Amino acid sequence: MVHSSLLEAVQFCDKYPYVFEKTEKQPVAFKHDDALLGQILPNVISALTEYNNSVSPSPFKIEPDLVTFANWVDTFDKRTEVMKVLADTWRERKLFPVLEGWRNELYPIYGHHDLVFVMERAATPLFGVSTFGCHLNAYVTDNEGKIHMWVARRAKTKPTWPGMLDNCVAGGISYQYRIKDTIVKECDEEASIPAELASKARSTNVISYYTFTDGGLQPETEYIFDLELPQDFKPTPKDGEVDCFYLWPLEKVKESILNQEWKSNSALVAIDFMIRHSYITPDEEPDYIKISYHLHRKLEFPTPIRK
Amino acid sequence: MVHSSLLEAVQFCDKYPYVFEKTEKQPVAFKHDDALLGQILPNVISALTEYNNSVSPSPFKIEPDLVTFANWVDTFDKRTEVMKVLADTWRERKLFPVLEGWRNELYPIYGHHDLVFVMERAATPLFGVSTFGCHLNAYVTDNEGKIHMWVARRAKTKPTWPGMLDNCVAGGISYQYRIKDTIVKECDEEASIPAELASKARSTNVISYYTFTDGGLQPETEYIFDLELPQDFKPTPKDGEVDCFYLWPLEKVKESILNQEWKSNSALVAIDFMIRHSYITPDEEPDYIKISYHLHRKLEFPTPIRK
Repeated sequence: MVHSSLLEAVQFCDKYPYVFEKTEKQPVAFKHDDALLGQILPNVISALTEYNNSVSPSPFKIEPDLVTFANWVDTFDKRTEVMKVLADTWRERKLFPVLEGWRNELYPIYGHHDLVFVMERAATPLFGVSTFGCHLNAYVTDNEGKIHMWVARRAKTKPTWPGMLDNCVAGGISYQYRIKDTIVKECDEEASIPAELASKARSTNVISYYTFTDGGLQPETEYIFDLELPQDFKPTPKDGEVDCFYLWPLEKVKESILNQEWKSNSALVAIDFMIRHSYITPDEEPDYIKISYHLHRKLEFPTPIRK
Repeated sequence: MVHSSLLEAVQFCDKYPYVFEKTEKQPVAFKHDDALLGQILPNVISALTEYNNSVSPSPFKIEPDLVTFANWVDTFDKRTEVMKVLADTWRERKLFPVLEGWRNELYPIYGHHDLVFVMERAATPLFGVSTFGCHLNAYVTDNEGKIHMWVARRAKTKPTWPGMLDNCVAGGISYQYRIKDTIVKECDEEASIPAELASKARSTNVISYYTFTDGGLQPETEYIFDLELPQDFKPTPKDGEVDCFYLWPLEKVKESILNQEWKSNSALVAIDFMIRHSYITPDEEPDYIKISYHLHRKLEFPTPIRK
């Protein structure tokens, strides 16, 4: 076992510090109209300062503890264009490996009252902006009433977490997509689950955590859906993102999480499922409350505005 | 409608400030071995100081920003005795109205590694200690698959929230009781649900929030259970705590919450149920994420240690 407990497994994902020591340097706040949009690490600040000094007029105002847009960057369109040119430039110059995983997906960045701009998904960790996705737990109830979960094995060619275990279906929520529509679309693309079946997916929860990788900071929120599949339906890979699917009892799901075989945030989704379906219970799991805190971290960024 | 949104309804319960203004006076921390056990309001600090000066040896060490036990109060038994004598004294002197609701139930107060002491339930708000309870959502699925919730009307004679709506069953978790056993016991006492049926209750979640009343501060954690009842079973009052039960569609549950007809923390339990059962969804509820934050507040107090 690599994780000694489920608490360790959730802390392996929700690992951004809750409290900084006074001697530790915190990332720089990226703000707009008093809303915290993101947090930027020192290496990105260096690159951003260099870039900002090389273009005229400079698109950002960079202070020691604060990055904001320059005064002339005063509309949604201008902010979006500034972020696009910056990401394109860094991508061409191969400045950050994370940009090699370019997605051609635009993610919305929200302020307190409005959408501030949209930006390429692959660049979001460089600015530590809050992103939103959806994950689906597909499961089967056997004739004895016992739950088995469909678990995906990620393709070995995926740029992130290759070959690791994952939820049956997951996806980011792009600009202007509805959450339920995103789940139905991803069900088809990733697991060949037809829309008629996928539309029975039920929204059941939301989890939030703050993680980071070599690529940058990732405060993330995932809307959770459950879909009970008929015993005779088998999800099958379609778009090449998934290698294969397994139908596992929850004992094996838990064991594989402790064995660190899962993509770290997807393990949180499976743990939340096991809590809601009474497989992880407070009388048996000593860290039940602490696990719940890590599944529901209060992020200081604005939440989506849907109009 | 008294609450303009579900967010307002959850904030009506989880209302202890998240951030204090620098000019605001915070309650005084009650600590043991670096663990925050509780938080004490100024009026209680005054009474505690007076009491502490009147007995010898003084059981507490009272500093401007910190209350701890005096050095001689160095065991579980001594701490429990000190708290008992104090609560009995204040009750006799009728110093705090909250003590008139005496329960004869001992609540456990945890430190980081051990149980620190146990104390009378009615006195817990005076010390702002973290308490733990369990709530049960009882529901029925009709022939069309639609969910109806059993809602309790609290007795008009209850000292707190008389005549308000409540979850079908709820109870505090006393010292040395298991959570599931507490639910089964309360199912019988409050709703005449026999153990055979009640034992089918499934643990599904935990919620946490920090509220306060005239009686004091209440950081609380509630373990949530769901129990699907047969269509032909009707819960009935037994111990006089409940006036009657209603079987309501979720539309009516939501409406009555917005109409402020519910005990404030029990509304959170019903909202969590409606989220998990896909009645409240992120595509329709604009405050979905913020509501979730308030249902899962990270409390700074130690969590239970079960041995």
